[in-house]
Amino acid sequence: MSRRMQIGAYLVRRLAEAGISHLFGVPGDFNLSFLEQVEADPSLTFVGNCNELNAAYAADGYARTSGLCGLLTTFGVGDLGAISGIAGAYAERVPFVHITGIPPLHAVEGRALLHHTLGDGGYGNIGRCMAEYTVAQSRLTPENAVEEIDRVLRTCWRERRPVHLQLPSDITHLSIDVPDEPFVFAEPQGDAEQAALAASHIATRLAAARSPVMILDSDADRFGVAGKIAALAERCAIPCLATAPAKAVLDETAPYYLGGYVGGASRPDIRELVSQSDCVIGVGLRFTEINTGFFTHDIRSDSFINLLAHEVNLAGRSIPAAPLGAVLEALLERVKPSSRTLPARPAASGTVLPGGAEERLTHDMFWPRVARFLKEGDVVIGEAGTSNTALLGTPFPKGTHYISQPIWGAIGYTLPALFGSQLGSPDRRHLLFIGDGSFQLTVQELSTILRHDQKPVIFLLNNRGYTIERLILGERSQYNDIANWRYADLPRVFDRDDRALSLVVETVSELEDALKQAEKADRAVFIEVRLPEMDAPEALKVFGMVVADYDYGPQGPRNGSVKKG
Amino acid sequence: MSRRMQIGAYLVRRLAEAGISHLFGVPGDFNLSFLEQVEADPSLTFVGNCNELNAAYAADGYARTSGLCGLLTTFGVGDLGAISGIAGAYAERVPFVHITGIPPLHAVEGRALLHHTLGDGGYGNIGRCMAEYTVAQSRLTPENAVEEIDRVLRTCWRERRPVHLQLPSDITHLSIDVPDEPFVFAEPQGDAEQAALAASHIATRLAAARSPVMILDSDADRFGVAGKIAALAERCAIPCLATAPAKAVLDETAPYYLGGYVGGASRPDIRELVSQSDCVIGVGLRFTEINTGFFTHDIRSDSFINLLAHEVNLAGRSIPAAPLGAVLEALLERVKPSSRTLPARPAASGTVLPGGAEERLTHDMFWPRVARFLKEGDVVIGEAGTSNTALLGTPFPKGTHYISQPIWGAIGYTLPALFGSQLGSPDRRHLLFIGDGSFQLTVQELSTILRHDQKPVIFLLNNRGYTIERLILGERSQYNDIANWRYADLPRVFDRDDRALSLVVETVSELEDALKQAEKADRAVFIEVRLPEMDAPEALKVFGMVVADYDYGPQGPRNGSVKKG
Repeated sequence: MSRRMQIGAYLVRRLAEAGISHLFGVPGDFNLSFLEQVEADPSLTFVGNCNELNAAYAADGYARTSGLCGLLTTFGVGDLGAISGIAGAYAERVPFVHITGIPPLHAVEGRALLHHTLGDGGYGNIGRCMAEYTVAQSRLTPENAVEEIDRVLRTCWRERRPVHLQLPSDITHLSIDVPDEPFVFAEPQGDAEQAALAASHIATRLAAARSPVMILDSDADRFGVAGKIAALAERCAIPCLATAPAKAVLDETAPYYLGGYVGGASRPDIRELVSQSDCVIGVGLRFTEINTGFFTHDIRSDSFINLLAHEVNLAGRSIPAAPLGAVLEALLERVKPSSRTLPARPAASGTVLPGGAEERLTHDMFWPRVARFLKEGDVVIGEAGTSNTALLGTPFPKGTHYISQPIWGAIGYTLPALFGSQLGSPDRRHLLFIGDGSFQLTVQELSTILRHDQKPVIFLLNNRGYTIERLILGERSQYNDIANWRYADLPRVFDRDDRALSLVVETVSELEDALKQAEKADRAVFIEVRLPEMDAPEALKVFGMVVADYDYGPQGPRNGSVKKG
Repeated sequence: MSRRMQIGAYLVRRLAEAGISHLFGVPGDFNLSFLEQVEADPSLTFVGNCNELNAAYAADGYARTSGLCGLLTTFGVGDLGAISGIAGAYAERVPFVHITGIPPLHAVEGRALLHHTLGDGGYGNIGRCMAEYTVAQSRLTPENAVEEIDRVLRTCWRERRPVHLQLPSDITHLSIDVPDEPFVFAEPQGDAEQAALAASHIATRLAAARSPVMILDSDADRFGVAGKIAALAERCAIPCLATAPAKAVLDETAPYYLGGYVGGASRPDIRELVSQSDCVIGVGLRFTEINTGFFTHDIRSDSFINLLAHEVNLAGRSIPAAPLGAVLEALLERVKPSSRTLPARPAASGTVLPGGAEERLTHDMFWPRVARFLKEGDVVIGEAGTSNTALLGTPFPKGTHYISQPIWGAIGYTLPALFGSQLGSPDRRHLLFIGDGSFQLTVQELSTILRHDQKPVIFLLNNRGYTIERLILGERSQYNDIANWRYADLPRVFDRDDRALSLVVETVSELEDALKQAEKADRAVFIEVRLPEMDAPEALKVFGMVVADYDYGPQGPRNGSVKKG
């Protein structure tokens, strides 16, 4: 069965059928005719951002807590404005559908020299760049739209990565025959025999293992298998570790959760557990420098099993067509309860919080108070640098969702991501921790947060510059300085309705008072936390030395100056 | 002769020898070791921006008034953050040297999984994207650095377009043999016979022509030939027209300057002059929709000569190896003074300014007062949309330099471009005209302007949203709304020293008073000009209709709704 629909209206319908209800972006002349169709259909809401990079980050944040969404830009300027955010989503496996309003087909085919192009008649450059950071791409035409929209949407979800659709501005209102049947996602089922084979192998290894361990990476979150992993850990008494990208994917208060994994930089008991384990099960584990403590991991290759999105790697041998979810399900059918005891976690540090009431705040005093402030179900967002580093070491309550961007690591990502996540999950409390250097990159999105009357608690950690960089190189170099804004005045500049509560804290008692106010405030809370310039979480100080050595080598300035000095 | 130098120090030396004294950008771990070498050398100054896109725009603005400069980013996130600004410089022929600090060679060659990458071991994607928008690229190694740096720098200048150098973080401090000889630019001389041949042809045509005319595009500015064109126009009494990208490249008060050219949308006398001319000389003329009034130009192809950067096109036949400067010089040697009379320009409109003192400001009242405020030697910067449209119709005093981005047309470009231009030309008064929608994209760079104690006059035209878009489509659609900030409070938020004068004007007398204050202020002046939401320069209202027709076609929503209504 088919009926006639305008192409743009059909795309809106397909997006809605795929569960997409929000489209972030910035209007531009090549996407306005499509925007008219979006505005006419209540199932899809366009959300304007201040610029395209922020829109991409917002889409990314939304997708991490609230499912698929869309990103809408205009050709050229909009696409390239957003591309770093799209690449970040590709790197971190976050799925959203990027739609570009491109010049009319007659112009593209006639190689017309238009604005928002290079002025040379070329229309392929943007698509070639997008293809580097998306898993499916298509330039829609009246002839291919029905086929291509479905293919691209399915690939987006299958690979949990961005996809790119180019929609010429002059075809949005042309009518074509479209199917009546609604869009359905098809999660790949793989080959049931392969999944069973892999599961049997793993079950055998687990039954024989003296000391198994699981190490989670972000795919555990993206492919929605945290519940199955928890069930397996519980049934077989397997201790679990989380790499930075998988922080809080498992309930951190559960007995099987042991802590974070960072290769040789892990807690000593964890380091020893992994290096001596006879069965290490990775879930989408990527051997990045962050996950491995700069490649200092020690995992016996004959003991290592890696469960990937669509295949299993068993001690170096790949078993294709064995999807993550199917394998875990088959495994749960096969494993028997174990009598192993889970290793004990080291006792939590004392309950006395460091720092007297009138003392000037340091990281040592700040983060333990943050830990107490967190509550079940919070969404916590940690910007690259001091915030993410400190939060990785902070225990989270049950049901906390953590958002950071550890692989792509673009500073400024988290403020727009906060907007996106909160738009999709308005009932959860959102807390953002961001440094001043990062905040300056994307500051304008604070206005979008306030415009939508969102109520996050934002901690702006003001340490006067790029402290993470100072710890790597150039402690006193000018290039690490930034302007010192009156940060706390920004909420009222961005919002003529003065909805936010804005505070500045510099001492322990001021922080404690601010946290009390934030606890009961039914509005956005912005807290500028003033910290000493070179103060940082201990882990970050060590990290700085290691990075300098890795990046600049034995003759690099830091090693060089050590030798000279 | 050669000596040993560290690769990074040698690159700094080469940049300085090429006349580059400023490097815009954002620090990141992969470029810090190079930054140490920059900071150690007084001949090159690093200028930190709030984000990479802004840094690229600043480099672009600098290069337009003050010559070559550099842009420094970190791998991946920084490159893709800046790429839209680099593409804009490519489209508009603005030269700067983009240097990326990339991961250490050992990591690149070993395909290590690092942050700021896609986490898949691939290091080629960034270079492939950059190659779309730069005219030369190289990944430096100790083996190729001497050769490649010079090749890439020369290509940058030859083509007046950006180039890209990747500098691995672990080679900056390695020493190699480098030449003692300083870097020299070699402007292509072409083949003297070819230039002479072209010049003779043109001189013959000019001598026989009844009514010649010259139409300038931006290459006239980029290749520094405005003086030669003026001499030719004067000697041979050739009336001159400027396309939008060439606004104010010629002295607009000179008798040979007739006005702007926009194809069939030109002033009637200009339209007729061009369509009836028997010798139309284009200078780098590109037939873009902006230059041609949406392809409504009427130029006899057998009368058309186009002087391009490195070749001449004579009635459709290409003469290569005939560079713009050389051809004009050869032409000036051959042409004889003409007895033709230059066509008269229409009388300027009356000297009475529209609008009573207490009337609410409209565009009709605003721009004539701006025209009177301009003075010789100003740098005027016009953001895409209402500002650029109105300024194109505003007569400029002698020696005015105009900056806009008519081809790439990225909104938000001008605020960072203002910063860059003023840094390079601190002694010229700079005036920026920017709408609220555009301003929100790159607002943070206002802080960099104030941090450097620059003293521009910034007119923030607040008309509550994307008015240019409303004129194209969606006059009352929500997607064209934006947040209404307290704009005038931003200078004090961004600058704790309160250096700027900030004003809000809504009536004619308020504007006139503000202009008086700006005239004598020895500090930055920020003027929020409140204008009615749908008010716009007349030219823009017409433009909106034409764009809607071109972009959305006969069945598009605007034509469609006209038919339905």
